[in-house]
Amino acid sequence: MERSVRELWAESRDLLGLPCPPMDDPSAASAVPRVDLPPTPLAFLRDHVSPGRPLLVSAAATRHWPAASLWPIASYLTDTLRSTAVSLHLTPDGRADALASHPHPDPQRAGSSRCFASAHVRRVDFPAAVRLIRESDPAAGLVAYAQQQDDCLRGEYAAVAGDVDAHVPWASEALGCLPEAVNLWIGNAHSVTSFHKDHYDNIYAVVSGEKHFLLLPPTEHHRLYVRDYPAAEYVAAEQDADGEHQLRLKLEMEEPERIVPWSSVDPCPSSPEEMAAQAAAFPLYFDGPAPIRCTVRAGEMLYLPSMWFHHVSQSPGPNGLTIAVNYWYDMQFDIRYAYFNFLRSLEIDHRSSGIAGDLEGDLEENND
Amino acid sequence: MERSVRELWAESRDLLGLPCPPMDDPSAASAVPRVDLPPTPLAFLRDHVSPGRPLLVSAAATRHWPAASLWPIASYLTDTLRSTAVSLHLTPDGRADALASHPHPDPQRAGSSRCFASAHVRRVDFPAAVRLIRESDPAAGLVAYAQQQDDCLRGEYAAVAGDVDAHVPWASEALGCLPEAVNLWIGNAHSVTSFHKDHYDNIYAVVSGEKHFLLLPPTEHHRLYVRDYPAAEYVAAEQDADGEHQLRLKLEMEEPERIVPWSSVDPCPSSPEEMAAQAAAFPLYFDGPAPIRCTVRAGEMLYLPSMWFHHVSQSPGPNGLTIAVNYWYDMQFDIRYAYFNFLRSLEIDHRSSGIAGDLEGDLEENND
Repeated sequence: MERSVRELWAESRDLLGLPCPPMDDPSAASAVPRVDLPPTPLAFLRDHVSPGRPLLVSAAATRHWPAASLWPIASYLTDTLRSTAVSLHLTPDGRADALASHPHPDPQRAGSSRCFASAHVRRVDFPAAVRLIRESDPAAGLVAYAQQQDDCLRGEYAAVAGDVDAHVPWASEALGCLPEAVNLWIGNAHSVTSFHKDHYDNIYAVVSGEKHFLLLPPTEHHRLYVRDYPAAEYVAAEQDADGEHQLRLKLEMEEPERIVPWSSVDPCPSSPEEMAAQAAAFPLYFDGPAPIRCTVRAGEMLYLPSMWFHHVSQSPGPNGLTIAVNYWYDMQFDIRYAYFNFLRSLEIDHRSSGIAGDLEGDLEENND
Repeated sequence: MERSVRELWAESRDLLGLPCPPMDDPSAASAVPRVDLPPTPLAFLRDHVSPGRPLLVSAAATRHWPAASLWPIASYLTDTLRSTAVSLHLTPDGRADALASHPHPDPQRAGSSRCFASAHVRRVDFPAAVRLIRESDPAAGLVAYAQQQDDCLRGEYAAVAGDVDAHVPWASEALGCLPEAVNLWIGNAHSVTSFHKDHYDNIYAVVSGEKHFLLLPPTEHHRLYVRDYPAAEYVAAEQDADGEHQLRLKLEMEEPERIVPWSSVDPCPSSPEEMAAQAAAFPLYFDGPAPIRCTVRAGEMLYLPSMWFHHVSQSPGPNGLTIAVNYWYDMQFDIRYAYFNFLRSLEIDHRSSGIAGDLEGDLEENND
């Protein structure tokens, strides 16, 4: 089975026209097809949506947006949204919707040592939100990210929604619908989004700074070791220290228990020891082909096909912020989705490949 | 594995919007979406090509073709092609490119009792070809079918190619190319095409009579028991009998040996005994959902997505002939093709489903 699955990875990358370099090959960057001008709806549908092939559209895509010139100016957004309350996502380390150490590990069950941690969401005035984002510092235990994914550009941020196109015309015409949600994302280098997939066709436009994507096609599902984790959330404990008001975040398990299937893999471990542990625990990821790397710069748009796994980090622009807008379009649930579910239903027997000795407890529980 | 594969069948039919009735349910007919007018290129691409969903376009599709009125007139084609030599496919029973009894069965190997039989192809003047097609009779051991699949409408039949559109405009625009081949098919009720798939997107237009398709999506590959068969071809032995010149066909194995992977399943066995043997030998087909049935009438066009398995029988029009034109467009080899090859690489262990006792020798040799 493992051999067949590895052949599937190689063939699908080959058919996508995306290379399959070894994990440590830096030439894996920029493999995503790039065009200068937005495609016609027909070409976009035929060459990207239908085959599930990403596309990077260069700066011409958003040059006409008022946001392109206005949003990078530090004062514009804080002035326009001066009295607007927005949902700010707070974590100690910039990792919202990601695995974290279980706050009450069960020593009897190695597999329960990690949980799925959601951010503490707090409504604050926009200028205060921007201040907290800029001051984000894992060393100080607080990272803020405005990333409310509930159509927030047309909701909380409606006052500036007119600064960007309401939809992506060539995508809307190709897909035959308008976006289901349009979201605004404001963060800095400390916020990272862990590997996951969305049931949407996604157009991701960067307005300030850069977004760095690691991409895996849906066929590489098994490489991500999606496992069931108990959900937890950060809760706030206010405290006064040295005469200053401080916010301290504490991770608490959700009650009643909620289970979230999530990728076990951290593709960018923070230490050599953690890298060694990850590589031993998740060999299908770390021994497999490098993920497709794609940096989306200010003014560019990435088409990210539905069901593609993506891990996102970011670099701020001169204004200290990474600002992006994404358009989620309803995906077509077709035979590819059936194939994906079939693939997902198959277990790869790691033991037969002679790596059983390296597996951590997590891998013993395949409940995906 | 068998359970996962059966779930794949059910989910892909469900997502295609095509029903999954039991094998003996006559309501399985006419499940293919039907439209009165040709779709726009964008809608065709989005709703049919991309998801791999067949489409039947009603009589409006070819009403403007001169062929629609000219070809059904018995004398028109024979007059226009009076001195044209065409490739006529001759078999004793109307089954070209189909399994047949091995002419020299090896008693040691039950699996070698069938072979893949190709027609005897003979160049004859078109009027003689039509006469042979009309007189086709399995009882007399000779069935003729003009079905040269080498772009023959633009080759042997170039004199009448102008009677139909050179391509299908909405399909060409959607697929971004012109047809790779345009073929003409002239036969009568005695010719049957066995289950197979093509690596083309296919537009099939009927001009006279009716074509009856049994369809299975690519996800149902295992139901067809594709196995390796040695190739054979019918060769002609002329003979004079009772003062009349007769053509007798004899099956001979190809030398050197050539192996053809082909479906083992005959969905329309000719006798109750043969039906019982087929049902016992190929339970994934006969115990599974009914194939999708679709009759294409004169003037109608069927879009048959690439990689779909199809079995075709036919009924003649008032002129005694079934006449059709098909357009083969290069398919897009994308992630669906990789998924299909992955699926095909997996063996279903029939023995574990408790039906081992019924299997015939053929099934022991899974060399697909």
